[in-house]
Amino acid sequence: MPKYVYDFHEGNKDLKDLLGGKGANLAEMTNLGLPVPPGFVITTEACNVYLESGSEPKELEQEVGEHLAALEKTMGKRLGQADDPLLVSVRSGAKFSMPGMMDTVLNIGLNDESVEGLAKQAGSPRFAWDSYRRLIQMFGKTVLGVDGEHFEHVFDAAKEAKGTKNDLDLDDGDLRGIVEQYKEIVAKYAGRPFPTDPREQLDLAVRAVFDSWNGDRAKLYRRQERIPADLGTAVNVVAMVFGNIGMDSGTGVAFTRDPGSGDQGVYGDYLQNAQGEDVVAGIRNTVSLADLEDIDKPAYDELMAIMAKLENHYKDLCDIEFTVERNKLWMLQTRVGKRTAAAAFKIAVQLVDEGLIDMDEALQRVNGAQLAQLMFPRFDDAADKKQIAKGVNASPGAAVGKVVFDSATAGEWAARGEDVILVRRETNPDDLPGMIAAQGILTSRGGKTSHAAVVARGMGKTCVSGADDLEINVSAKTVVTKDGTKIGEGDVLSIDGTSGTVYLGEVPVVPSPVVEYFEGNLAVDADPLVAAVDRIINYADGKRRLGVRTNADTDEDAARARRFGGEGIGLCRTEHMFLGERRAFVERLILAEGEEEQKAALDALLPLQREDFVGILAAMDGLPVTVRLIDPPLHEFLPDLTELSVKIAVAQAKGETVSDQDRTLLEAVRRLHEQNPMLGLRGVRLGLVIPGLFALQVRAIAEAAAQLKKDGKDPRPEIMVPLVGAVQELEIVREEAERILAEVAAETGVTVGTLIGTMIEVPRAAMTAGQIAEAADFFSFGTNDLTQMGWGFSRDDVEGAFFSRYIEVGVFGVSPFETLDAEGIGRLVKIAVEEGRATRPTLKVGVCGEHGGDPESVHFFHHAGLDYVSCSPFRVPVARLEAGRASLDAAGSDSR
Amino acid sequence: MPKYVYDFHEGNKDLKDLLGGKGANLAEMTNLGLPVPPGFVITTEACNVYLESGSEPKELEQEVGEHLAALEKTMGKRLGQADDPLLVSVRSGAKFSMPGMMDTVLNIGLNDESVEGLAKQAGSPRFAWDSYRRLIQMFGKTVLGVDGEHFEHVFDAAKEAKGTKNDLDLDDGDLRGIVEQYKEIVAKYAGRPFPTDPREQLDLAVRAVFDSWNGDRAKLYRRQERIPADLGTAVNVVAMVFGNIGMDSGTGVAFTRDPGSGDQGVYGDYLQNAQGEDVVAGIRNTVSLADLEDIDKPAYDELMAIMAKLENHYKDLCDIEFTVERNKLWMLQTRVGKRTAAAAFKIAVQLVDEGLIDMDEALQRVNGAQLAQLMFPRFDDAADKKQIAKGVNASPGAAVGKVVFDSATAGEWAARGEDVILVRRETNPDDLPGMIAAQGILTSRGGKTSHAAVVARGMGKTCVSGADDLEINVSAKTVVTKDGTKIGEGDVLSIDGTSGTVYLGEVPVVPSPVVEYFEGNLAVDADPLVAAVDRIINYADGKRRLGVRTNADTDEDAARARRFGGEGIGLCRTEHMFLGERRAFVERLILAEGEEEQKAALDALLPLQREDFVGILAAMDGLPVTVRLIDPPLHEFLPDLTELSVKIAVAQAKGETVSDQDRTLLEAVRRLHEQNPMLGLRGVRLGLVIPGLFALQVRAIAEAAAQLKKDGKDPRPEIMVPLVGAVQELEIVREEAERILAEVAAETGVTVGTLIGTMIEVPRAAMTAGQIAEAADFFSFGTNDLTQMGWGFSRDDVEGAFFSRYIEVGVFGVSPFETLDAEGIGRLVKIAVEEGRATRPTLKVGVCGEHGGDPESVHFFHHAGLDYVSCSPFRVPVARLEAGRASLDAAGSDSR
Repeated sequence: MPKYVYDFHEGNKDLKDLLGGKGANLAEMTNLGLPVPPGFVITTEACNVYLESGSEPKELEQEVGEHLAALEKTMGKRLGQADDPLLVSVRSGAKFSMPGMMDTVLNIGLNDESVEGLAKQAGSPRFAWDSYRRLIQMFGKTVLGVDGEHFEHVFDAAKEAKGTKNDLDLDDGDLRGIVEQYKEIVAKYAGRPFPTDPREQLDLAVRAVFDSWNGDRAKLYRRQERIPADLGTAVNVVAMVFGNIGMDSGTGVAFTRDPGSGDQGVYGDYLQNAQGEDVVAGIRNTVSLADLEDIDKPAYDELMAIMAKLENHYKDLCDIEFTVERNKLWMLQTRVGKRTAAAAFKIAVQLVDEGLIDMDEALQRVNGAQLAQLMFPRFDDAADKKQIAKGVNASPGAAVGKVVFDSATAGEWAARGEDVILVRRETNPDDLPGMIAAQGILTSRGGKTSHAAVVARGMGKTCVSGADDLEINVSAKTVVTKDGTKIGEGDVLSIDGTSGTVYLGEVPVVPSPVVEYFEGNLAVDADPLVAAVDRIINYADGKRRLGVRTNADTDEDAARARRFGGEGIGLCRTEHMFLGERRAFVERLILAEGEEEQKAALDALLPLQREDFVGILAAMDGLPVTVRLIDPPLHEFLPDLTELSVKIAVAQAKGETVSDQDRTLLEAVRRLHEQNPMLGLRGVRLGLVIPGLFALQVRAIAEAAAQLKKDGKDPRPEIMVPLVGAVQELEIVREEAERILAEVAAETGVTVGTLIGTMIEVPRAAMTAGQIAEAADFFSFGTNDLTQMGWGFSRDDVEGAFFSRYIEVGVFGVSPFETLDAEGIGRLVKIAVEEGRATRPTLKVGVCGEHGGDPESVHFFHHAGLDYVSCSPFRVPVARLEAGRASLDAAGSDSR
Repeated sequence: MPKYVYDFHEGNKDLKDLLGGKGANLAEMTNLGLPVPPGFVITTEACNVYLESGSEPKELEQEVGEHLAALEKTMGKRLGQADDPLLVSVRSGAKFSMPGMMDTVLNIGLNDESVEGLAKQAGSPRFAWDSYRRLIQMFGKTVLGVDGEHFEHVFDAAKEAKGTKNDLDLDDGDLRGIVEQYKEIVAKYAGRPFPTDPREQLDLAVRAVFDSWNGDRAKLYRRQERIPADLGTAVNVVAMVFGNIGMDSGTGVAFTRDPGSGDQGVYGDYLQNAQGEDVVAGIRNTVSLADLEDIDKPAYDELMAIMAKLENHYKDLCDIEFTVERNKLWMLQTRVGKRTAAAAFKIAVQLVDEGLIDMDEALQRVNGAQLAQLMFPRFDDAADKKQIAKGVNASPGAAVGKVVFDSATAGEWAARGEDVILVRRETNPDDLPGMIAAQGILTSRGGKTSHAAVVARGMGKTCVSGADDLEINVSAKTVVTKDGTKIGEGDVLSIDGTSGTVYLGEVPVVPSPVVEYFEGNLAVDADPLVAAVDRIINYADGKRRLGVRTNADTDEDAARARRFGGEGIGLCRTEHMFLGERRAFVERLILAEGEEEQKAALDALLPLQREDFVGILAAMDGLPVTVRLIDPPLHEFLPDLTELSVKIAVAQAKGETVSDQDRTLLEAVRRLHEQNPMLGLRGVRLGLVIPGLFALQVRAIAEAAAQLKKDGKDPRPEIMVPLVGAVQELEIVREEAERILAEVAAETGVTVGTLIGTMIEVPRAAMTAGQIAEAADFFSFGTNDLTQMGWGFSRDDVEGAFFSRYIEVGVFGVSPFETLDAEGIGRLVKIAVEEGRATRPTLKVGVCGEHGGDPESVHFFHHAGLDYVSCSPFRVPVARLEAGRASLDAAGSDSR
């Protein structure tokens, strides 16, 4: 038979699934002998029974009764006992902390009788009636669903009547009156009287916690964060201790190290004669934790000892909530504390040096998102800065520019070379051109999943959203700060997307020391952060199974990626080799009449492309370079249909002569125009339809490699065919490529081992990977296209049009272009890896979509059995780190 | 140990895998006691050993020797024996008949010595030397790979020197000279002398047959027809009999019934003093088989008896090749004969009535492609027709129109209401607009897989391709027929895509009697074909498990589909409900500022759409009607971007004022413009992004159904959500729809049971079907979009651009939009069916892509376990028939 209630003595920190995070840590502290108020936890299993069946498990009432009795015995008083009441708090506590869940009801056990007992025991009728007032207010709001405003109106009216703004000026008489009015509010709006039976209070509060698991906000949050809906929440029932019972009492929070820098020391805040909610309300100012030493040395010393013990025990930075009740210290909560990216790296190596953890553990304490943050340029710490607002850190980076309020102006100013910051209350799809033109985006509304945030992250553009201290008036073109400063179009702002801070004027930007180090411009011991990053990433390199390559199209990018640790090129696009002045050749190719002319156009490109490949292969000498044959439809190299049509129509309307060339061109553009070019004549289809096109590229690669090899180099080209959906396509291209490789080998007398493989980026390719592997030396997943085609949406068209809405309603937690959608697209990847390898056990498998540099996706690729990931040069260190971390994931884990 | 050689006595007709079709049937006839020349078969297994290892299995030489010895014993003479040689033919014979395979070498066993023996035995030196001449020519060409033209030049020169055009005028002296020259040609071009050893001749010919399995044309044909590459071919070695040994000899072909009409009787042709190849060459005219009775009554009577026996034995129409050698009848081949569509139906029921087969067998003897042919209108048989050419029956139907030679003229003439036939030597993507405008397409080049054929079939447009009797000159705008008739632009042609015939002038078109019958305009007994179709299709209805619904958007279509046997609507598109005069509302919706205006635009549409649904639901009263919520992107309801841009720019250039409305409209068109609308804001995405849009449609459906139910009808609406990729999307729409259904039920007091389900048309939906089924009462596969997204191509953009090329090089055998690609897209379907049903065993599963009416695809859907297929009204009978046939497929079969 399941056990639905655990005393704190019966639990430990590893029982988070059953007891929730808060309960498990309270149990852990209890068993460490720390001063935790006694209490018990109702399990997530009880919650799940309730949610499935609609009623609590029948054993629950009795189990709660038994544990309550034990608690009463420990405390020497009964719940709600008239002359000396035991009071308890009821708090939710799920495995993952979750906004939207019912938070807390304090002071359960008070009613018209026991409030008098409490008054006597505490020696303070005001305290007792204030506690009662708080109970009815919290209970009414969170358990009985009464709109909180009703209570606030009464409370504010009472203060106004008294001519004060300070709660403490209300005396017990005032509070008695408020309690009466509160009870009336409950009766009126909840349709039932406030329950006076303490056990009924407790049971209703527990049920309210259960119910809150399925509240709209909680459900939405779970959908967004992909937290399973069947975890359920635990409920913590804890004996009340009071920080608001006098000046010898108080409440505080503490960190065992500086969560900002990682430095060791004492960090925290303390507020005398207060409860936790008062700290949040921010009515009075807290003091530094160090001041507690003066206020109450014994409590301070005990806290210091406990913090040392906790850090030693959790082997990590802990954050702590505590209360002092009449000079007696009580621990209300602890957990492993949040920290900044820099602190995470520094703390991890500190803990290794202190012998608390080993390097495996240190590697797991940091992550790629943190490393990515550290690689953005940032504002100079030392510079004078005028902070004017703090919003949501929606998309990292540091951006400086002139304020503009609309897309058109953004585009115009950017076109003439100005840096601009697009400022809007919130953005919508109409703002896309402006967002593209701007250095950064600033909004006063919306959080991390707002349109602005989602789109900016998708573009890799700095964004601060929800800076609600700013009053933005787009039609008046003004921003007004909290202190009344008025900012107009053209004024300069600096926004920090990593912290969410907004500064007035231009703040100097300094490069990331981590990047400076990778680039070889900074010594490893010049900065403790750099030293920590270096130590951990090198350790990750030793651990990882996944190779890390880069996506680079030029020798400059290739060389940089190599400095960043890239082990070859996983994707060298060749589109740019047809652009610029070479467009003319493509036009000739397209307009050619007959194969002779086509061939001439292609022949003219050969020496140019050969030189391109010489550069790239030389930069990656000794490492593999995967060259993707040309992918985009040829009309991308021609003028836009609408623009050209308008140009010619206008010329005609004005009676000007239209040249034959323009007419021919328009005809070609019309002929090649596609309704859906992404699903058109591109990739391998071009190779099969346009004679000589792929042959040109293969020959250029082969000749470049032969030339380098003659010069004593070690070129390692790999030829990759895009958009293959059927093995027959690949067979035909492969046959031709092998013929050309053999020809060049014969002509030059040099043989270069060249693999021939394919992208897997069309769903059908994944479905028939077992066949395709017959003709492929390697697979490289094009997860961008695979996502586009698997979901049936084009990133350009839809990301700005509805992704924020989709995230808002919980279809995605994150854009599937940012993090691989493991369930849908990932399943295609897994099937293709398995079936491809079943056909050809030596098949090399990598990924060259942008997901190759996304932390969570890297774990997926590790577990899917890929050989390497390939990502943009700047993401290479992130991928190295996460690939190392992935090798430490528990078997079968999915990186959560 | 495998046995590689079978005497005809050792085989039978069921051993086609091992002995090939020809060998198995020769064995069958031998065992029936029919006069088959003795011989043996080398198995496909021997071929496969040779192809894999590069040399014949070592046992083969001895086995062939043994069987040859037995053959020699039977015939009383040895292969190539000098004074009385045994001669043999060597023919390939695979399981499926396959162009590109080596066909035949006759007269093996002749050399300089045995030719004299043959001359003596036959009493005709001319016959012997002509046989020797034929051997060297065939052997040189097909076994030794010498270009056939070399031989023909010599032969033609000899005739010219003799001043004749008739082979028979060459005497034995001439033929001796030709033989000498042939031997020189072989020595020169094959690099080896013609082999004089008869056994060497035999062995080389066998090997040549093996090699021809991997000839380019054979490989291509296999790829196109999806015949497995590892079947291999058998080789038939048969004692020669001669139809060309005198006027008491001859050769012929026969059918046991009329393959054109199915009528019983004697059908065939006979040619005296000839070999099979002479019939093909067509130098002399054949006589009707009936004339054989006068020429050689005993042989004729024996043949009639054999034909009766064969039909009785094969229980089907047989076609036969035979030879008479000096009044002795020999059977050279038989097989189940090809027939026209009408004959197939009539023969099937005749055979049932004759007690030869049962109705299950009859159902398997016909197919949906034949039924579809019978449903096209056709040219009036009774009308005077002037046939001017016969081409390939590339896409069925009967089309009449004025000849045009280019796309532009086709478009212009069609726009002014003329019917046109586009005539080209061959078509390419530039001709697409003309093909769309024309009634039919006629080309002089290319077969069933040419661009014209593939595209026309995709459009369902009549096409005759490869009519090479016509000389088409596009620049001169003339067609010249074989007899010199000249046809110019504007002249009328009639083309029959079902038979490939081209007629001059207008041939009257009559409706299909089968359609007339379904429509209720023709009694079942008015036409024996109709009676046969009726009988078989009703039998199929009794057999089939699959339901057959129709895709219909209007009440007219719904009513017609019902007459054709449709059991409900599987896809009712709702796009048209926003078109026509209602575009104005869509424009208002799109240009609306604020939700009020949006709502007003939608509210105005409600009564109109309700009436639409009343009509459709009434037409399908008592049957399910699956309504798909609106799918296309909203910009499809606005003007085209390029056209509008040109219009406004031209107006501006001319100094005209551009209205504010036009400006606003252009802005909206620009804003909504998508690079890839197929992958854009459409389907369920519209429902989640535009408040009230789906709600309008659901309310219109619910109110229409309630109104009908109040009137005593039985409406059965099903609501289908398009383009779902994730269960969350469906959950949100479902929640709203259920709320509206409940509201309408409350308002009207009428509850209509309404299923809510989803299309499965995005690959990710198939991959996560197990989840999606949690929120779906039914799945309907949108195999058009699933094919587009699974392959990553848009039908509109690519079908004309490269499908013919893809079919030509063998990537497809047929367009995947015509027949479901079972391996790739079909796998997605299977996964979704299995996993959807695992979640929800009661899940209804159907298909509403165009594949629902394709014969081969219907079998796939049957075996994949679908509940129904849905197709256009005209395809409903085809689907009924094929669904019945599918239920008779062998377990695990794939309908081949």
